[in-house]
Amino acid sequence: MSAIYSATVTAPVNIATLKYWGKRDTVLNLPTNSSISVTLSQDDLCTTTTVSAGPDFTKDHLWLNGIEQEIEGSKRLEACFRELRKLRRALEDEKRAQGDKTVIPLSAFNLHIVSENNFPTAAGLASSAAGFAAFVSAIAKLFELPQSPTELSILARQGSGSACRSLFGGFVAWNMGSKADGSDSSAECIAPKEHWPQVRAAILVASADKKDVSSTSGMQITVKESSLFKERVNHVVPKRFEEMKQAILAKDFESFAELTMRDSNQFHAVCLDSYPPIFYMNDTSHAAVRVVEEINKQAGRLIAAYTFDAGPNCVIYYLEENEQEVLGPLKSVLGNLTGWNKKEKISPFVPTGFETRFLEKLINGIERVILTSIGEGPQDSSAQLIDHNGEPLR
Amino acid sequence: MSAIYSATVTAPVNIATLKYWGKRDTVLNLPTNSSISVTLSQDDLCTTTTVSAGPDFTKDHLWLNGIEQEIEGSKRLEACFRELRKLRRALEDEKRAQGDKTVIPLSAFNLHIVSENNFPTAAGLASSAAGFAAFVSAIAKLFELPQSPTELSILARQGSGSACRSLFGGFVAWNMGSKADGSDSSAECIAPKEHWPQVRAAILVASADKKDVSSTSGMQITVKESSLFKERVNHVVPKRFEEMKQAILAKDFESFAELTMRDSNQFHAVCLDSYPPIFYMNDTSHAAVRVVEEINKQAGRLIAAYTFDAGPNCVIYYLEENEQEVLGPLKSVLGNLTGWNKKEKISPFVPTGFETRFLEKLINGIERVILTSIGEGPQDSSAQLIDHNGEPLR
Repeated sequence: MSAIYSATVTAPVNIATLKYWGKRDTVLNLPTNSSISVTLSQDDLCTTTTVSAGPDFTKDHLWLNGIEQEIEGSKRLEACFRELRKLRRALEDEKRAQGDKTVIPLSAFNLHIVSENNFPTAAGLASSAAGFAAFVSAIAKLFELPQSPTELSILARQGSGSACRSLFGGFVAWNMGSKADGSDSSAECIAPKEHWPQVRAAILVASADKKDVSSTSGMQITVKESSLFKERVNHVVPKRFEEMKQAILAKDFESFAELTMRDSNQFHAVCLDSYPPIFYMNDTSHAAVRVVEEINKQAGRLIAAYTFDAGPNCVIYYLEENEQEVLGPLKSVLGNLTGWNKKEKISPFVPTGFETRFLEKLINGIERVILTSIGEGPQDSSAQLIDHNGEPLR
Repeated sequence: MSAIYSATVTAPVNIATLKYWGKRDTVLNLPTNSSISVTLSQDDLCTTTTVSAGPDFTKDHLWLNGIEQEIEGSKRLEACFRELRKLRRALEDEKRAQGDKTVIPLSAFNLHIVSENNFPTAAGLASSAAGFAAFVSAIAKLFELPQSPTELSILARQGSGSACRSLFGGFVAWNMGSKADGSDSSAECIAPKEHWPQVRAAILVASADKKDVSSTSGMQITVKESSLFKERVNHVVPKRFEEMKQAILAKDFESFAELTMRDSNQFHAVCLDSYPPIFYMNDTSHAAVRVVEEINKQAGRLIAAYTFDAGPNCVIYYLEENEQEVLGPLKSVLGNLTGWNKKEKISPFVPTGFETRFLEKLINGIERVILTSIGEGPQDSSAQLIDHNGEPLR
């Protein structure tokens, strides 16, 4: 007889509104500043991960989107495996100490893990955040770990910094912490999705060449070389962090929008102040900024906020009530792209007086639209990505 | 009988290597930081200005590149006229006090001024610097003013900030000064052209839409809105200013190049940190940065330095001895553009191993090349742009 134990979890993508850029410890992924993000709906963007454990598995295996990954030598993956097994072992020891003789020694079994995204990796979205969040959550579920999401976020952080924020839904803060071992550098929920369920996100996926610089190496160049970076992390972000939390708690969209746009700009500014300079925004990104500004100008107030991660894609946050005003102009030029299927009611309408110069520049620069909303944290799933022999199901 | 008195001067363009961005006084054009520039050869880029004065001229007139300009209401022009006439009047009074009865009351005459650039204004080069330098120099020549170029630079500064640096050749510093009346905010020569005559400049003129934001309004947005700007002007620039002066005096091209590139990047970084953000560099500019980096990588040392003003054009500084290594790859993709006529000896050669990805991006983005070198300050000229009746000669 050979038993297989398995569990499946889905985890979301998050897009920072106060950016994480810079590590004070590159092994533990400890950041130089706290950050804030919005978790996006798993209906549109999620990673599903099944983990199986069996006494007959001869080694750990991991398949991402159908391709087997090398685990040995990946310090990030090894750290996650090690830490999760340590927690499971402690749990097993504790149960045995309590006289429980039925405890299954999962910590001693090898694991097979299969992970699939419901969106193309090529979209350049932060798939590693969802990936490591699903990885940690799925193993924690299989291992029946009693740790809270905040405690698990410390493990996910070691896999990929921003993954710690994908352990929660709604609005999430990653507190940078101050301890050298990283035990206080963890995520927490500022407000759940239910606090402000009207928040929407439109992702304009830009056609891009190979990424300029990976974010891992990019942020270290900035830490080392930008003479403006210290000012950002020591003085600008701490204040902005509190202001953004307050704006979220007060559901003050205009403040939230301004802080989000300013912080995206400043993140790209310190990238540019690096040496050699790092460019993530391109001409299409610049045009998207101007389009959002024009949408806000037409509305006479801030109803849309752009933000850009380490790439040219534009994420626009807005509220459901302003959907027509925000998406109408975008649909007028991008309506032929995939992504509009749930938005038939949006009219591809450009208001009179709308400056269309930048809108037109999006036509050739954007290749895909993803329309989504604020979402929940990791969810248990009954899906199975691994068969009874421990092999990936396709 | 009606006499006409006239004088003609030519003045150069300068391109900053330590950027001027931000005013502490917008009326007097007093900067928030000191800056440094290289004056470019007037063989390639210059403004020629003839100024005439006559007792019969009924009002001041100014023609720029054949088009008459409105003087009334232009505070910058009016300030220059007023200050120059004040200096002339003082000179006339002094001469009369010394018993000189032949002094011509030029300060009481109206002026006709004709100014022409030897390069297209559309090139987006800093023509206002050369323009105001020529304007002030020509009137000073006509008025036989005893003031030094540094003293005259204070007047040119009030016309256009960076114009003060075009009063000198070679390497020029604009000391920001500290007085409220601007009397110590003036330019001086760090080293004349003869100190380092091997310095060359290649200007890659980028095809551009309408400028994103004028530099006058752009710099005020940055001063007001960028939270990184204060760090730049208070801490980064003062140190960089001294280091760059030392690099110039020591003819240390590598240090000069690194400081120049870092400062260009930081100027654009604080533009991006403005709100709304200001974008001057575009995808072509980004590609030009990568090409310069590749040229330096191939050389194994810094032989080329990029810098960008308030627009997408790339100015590359290099030394004559490295001309083939710097221009060869550029000529390979841009050789069909105008501007190479004096550089037949440059082979359009791309070294083996040269990463051509970014080089190829220049093909569609650059529309003109200007190859020039370090040059002299304003020069007296025997040219005449005004006829005997005080009308522009075409």
